Amino acid sequence: MKRSEVIEMRELALQYYAKAGIILTDEEKANIEVADLGLGMVKTVGLEIVTYINTERVCAKEMVLIPHQVCPEHRHVPTDGNEGKEETFRCRYGKVYLYTDTNKNAKKEDVSIPLPPTDVTVFDETILLPGQQFTIMPGTLHWFAAGEEGAVISEFSTRSTDETDWFTDKRIVREPKVEE
Amino acid sequence: MKRSEVIEMRELALQYYAKAGIILTDEEKANIEVADLGLGMVKTVGLEIVTYINTERVCAKEMVLIPHQVCPEHRHVPTDGNEGKEETFRCRYGKVYLYTDTNKNAKKEDVSIPLPPTDVTVFDETILLPGQQFTIMPGTLHWFAAGEEGAVISEFSTRSTDETDWFTDKRIVREPKVEE
Repeated sequence: MKRSEVIEMRELALQYYAKAGIILTDEEKANIEVADLGLGMVKTVGLEIVTYINTERVCAKEMVLIPHQVCPEHRHVPTDGNEGKEETFRCRYGKVYLYTDTNKNAKKEDVSIPLPPTDVTVFDETILLPGQQFTIMPGTLHWFAAGEEGAVISEFSTRSTDETDWFTDKRIVREPKVEE
Repeated sequence: MKRSEVIEMRELALQYYAKAGIILTDEEKANIEVADLGLGMVKTVGLEIVTYINTERVCAKEMVLIPHQVCPEHRHVPTDGNEGKEETFRCRYGKVYLYTDTNKNAKKEDVSIPLPPTDVTVFDETILLPGQQFTIMPGTLHWFAAGEEGAVISEFSTRSTDETDWFTDKRIVREPKVEE
């Protein structure tokens, strides 16, 4: 990802935080994490993140997906001798299309959005509108996407160890370099 | 506390959630927890709470303090063989006056609001405006109050076991009965 893309995505993300009425400090605004996961198509597959807190026991983040942006399929595995990350997503703005392996019989045809250009294998759909939430227990395969208005999602979780996540799409790199 | 007071406080709390742009489900709105801690002066000492999630490992709440309302001094003690609750408060609306024992030399005179009608013994003041936050580690004595505009505070924490909290004011009962 180029530095200019990071800046562009940060500016876009700020618009969505504002739509959700989320107030950030200047430092948080300047350091929004832009994750393209090494796929090089951040506007399609990627997400924007402000991490409020991440201690040994607790993590809270505020995530943005621009319209139709997809967070690719992954699961949280045991890390540092602890059980994998448990996370609750709460939609604050827009519409979230969330897919898990809860119903293993769900099929591609059950997905009400276009399939993304990254490997997905689970299709049990949950749609979250503002005020609605869903809890993802450790080990659950999941991916999610925003609808046409984008989405802002609060995440409440155990310690974030996203660097150990297992991704379905083997092209993915969790912490790719930013090119100057 | 009378049922009519609970209803009145819920209606008041809804106004503050709205000011903060927090979107709640109808079920959450109907079940806002109104805590007077058995002191019988909820508009002065008490708080209003929506608990989004409380699992074995993670808890997230959205709290309201009406103008000048005070959450009394307490600390979170080890419970069920686990370390005490760790919590991060993030101000979403209004102004929070938070007091901890971080600086044990802080004195009553350092408190920039009137002292509340409940026992307080720690006076290290932190003021939180929207977007600002503070993390309270287990065992830390703390109390907090809203300024004249009230406050909405997100809490990100480990499992909530507030029923085992240790309160300075010995009149306090964590789960007092509601009279019909």
